[in-house]
Amino acid sequence: MITVFDDRQFGHRPVHEFFNGALAAHADTPARATGILRAIGDTVAPTDHGMAPLAAVHDPAYLTFLTEAHDRWLAAGRTGDAIGYAWPVVGRRPLDLTRIDALLGRYTADAVTPIGAGTWDATYWGAQTALTALDHVLAGDRSAFALCRPPGHHAGRDYAGGYCFLNNAAIIAQAAVGAGRRVAILDVDYHHGNGTQDIFYDRGDVTFVSIHADPHTDFPYFWGHPDEHGAGDGLGANHNIILPRGTGWADYAPALDRSLDLIAASGADLLVLSFGADTYEGDPISGFALKTEDFATMAHRIAATGLPTVIVMEGGYAVDALGSNVATLLSGF
Amino acid sequence: MITVFDDRQFGHRPVHEFFNGALAAHADTPARATGILRAIGDTVAPTDHGMAPLAAVHDPAYLTFLTEAHDRWLAAGRTGDAIGYAWPVVGRRPLDLTRIDALLGRYTADAVTPIGAGTWDATYWGAQTALTALDHVLAGDRSAFALCRPPGHHAGRDYAGGYCFLNNAAIIAQAAVGAGRRVAILDVDYHHGNGTQDIFYDRGDVTFVSIHADPHTDFPYFWGHPDEHGAGDGLGANHNIILPRGTGWADYAPALDRSLDLIAASGADLLVLSFGADTYEGDPISGFALKTEDFATMAHRIAATGLPTVIVMEGGYAVDALGSNVATLLSGF
Repeated sequence: MITVFDDRQFGHRPVHEFFNGALAAHADTPARATGILRAIGDTVAPTDHGMAPLAAVHDPAYLTFLTEAHDRWLAAGRTGDAIGYAWPVVGRRPLDLTRIDALLGRYTADAVTPIGAGTWDATYWGAQTALTALDHVLAGDRSAFALCRPPGHHAGRDYAGGYCFLNNAAIIAQAAVGAGRRVAILDVDYHHGNGTQDIFYDRGDVTFVSIHADPHTDFPYFWGHPDEHGAGDGLGANHNIILPRGTGWADYAPALDRSLDLIAASGADLLVLSFGADTYEGDPISGFALKTEDFATMAHRIAATGLPTVIVMEGGYAVDALGSNVATLLSGF
Repeated sequence: MITVFDDRQFGHRPVHEFFNGALAAHADTPARATGILRAIGDTVAPTDHGMAPLAAVHDPAYLTFLTEAHDRWLAAGRTGDAIGYAWPVVGRRPLDLTRIDALLGRYTADAVTPIGAGTWDATYWGAQTALTALDHVLAGDRSAFALCRPPGHHAGRDYAGGYCFLNNAAIIAQAAVGAGRRVAILDVDYHHGNGTQDIFYDRGDVTFVSIHADPHTDFPYFWGHPDEHGAGDGLGANHNIILPRGTGWADYAPALDRSLDLIAASGADLLVLSFGADTYEGDPISGFALKTEDFATMAHRIAATGLPTVIVMEGGYAVDALGSNVATLLSGF
């Protein structure tokens, strides 16, 4: 299987995230990508598909914000990474905001997703990485791996959050729809893919299935509940399967089988797999108990669907085990 | 004029606020109240009106959150003040949340409004202070001053924000409505009183007029724009008058006159004045240029309406001048 990667993704180097009432070292380190690269060997560089496929799922004003945010932060006399401090929890609406703090509030959802000097380039080339992996699958490859960093699945149409800026899975799902495919997205990151859900929530042409920790106990808290079934044309095309902390493979496997049944029933002919390795038992910020070998079993079951599959990297913060976990998953395809 | 104060309000002692991507010393220090007390002399203690008048404008679940938040924070193994890190910027809805971080996201709007061990008691007695000042006016006093701290006007029906937890102005406006009065609220704090606006936005029986810095340049950014006129029964009863940074008395006075005309036209027979001294030229976090003597002129003009007036303390962070600014305002009534 081909792996796509662009080393400009190393340019996103967030220093701190704000939670527990304090600043802590940020979990999305460049070393995450390094560890995966060491474990899986050769990669190919992405080709540049430009802004159009990004703008097909993201608000143009949000994309402008992402490209300008850090420069605006510096122009306001600030140093370091840009992080918001106030959010429009009610009455969110289009406004011609200009102050960087207002823009950060309008276009982000939390205080753990800093924007630095290299963030836009990194996330742009992460999206191109995903689009290039899709190209390989559309050209006939059985599967391809997009080593995206920063991750994408918490980013919505017009907001960053949960370490994510551009929603790589949504971008390639939309591109695949544009190529005439019927797409399902399976999100197996430990955390709910709220951004992906939000982007396709009112659409019936892309099925979204997510297996994740109960949002009562884990980020992103406000989304990912089982009663979120989609709306309008999308009603019935959104599926959230929640599992309690401590879940190991014995209880994860039935949820995966149920997910694959839903995807089979959707009639999809192409699968986007949002893969987070943070379901691993050693993950420092998560609470499932999958073992490295379970990722091979996960891959076998997904591959057994016969669906051409683009695997997009999402979370996974046990840096020392990350390469092994990803390589094990890929080996199962 | 009587001043109501309860020293339990000193129990709110936030250490830090998070903005500009870093933690800074919190601006709402107990010394703010000390400075005012020194300048104005004797005070009377509030009487306890209980929870009912608070629950008349705030969501009961939000009040429960406020009473429990810091204990939940400690029970989760955290130390210091409770501050959120993730906010429901889309799809905000009732959820049976339990994790303190989720509750903080659901019931706050920013990272500058920490909840400490003494916050609930302080804000509870601040609200009782306001209710007691209202009692004096309902009993025939021409005016009364509620020395509330923390402030209240950024707190909405179900969220804290902008250093505010209970909306003292809204609580007494609602109580005055219950006593058969027709109420107008005039908010002259430097910042828009978004919580007050939000609470009465769809009601025509309470008129809200706010004079404040342009939210394009200043907190709370997302609310306080001139096109926010109210909704439903409240359409036309909400008025936002914005002024640019640098505004001095010459340009403030016409805005005040216009506000008083709107209030006269509303038919109000009782005025709640949300008074922030952060319009003062020396305020460290604000940008108007009023001088101490201007607060006397402001008071003269307001008093000239003849409306019985409850003055509720909101912001004002130039601690050394705060007592003098407040005393000057009160002397003008």
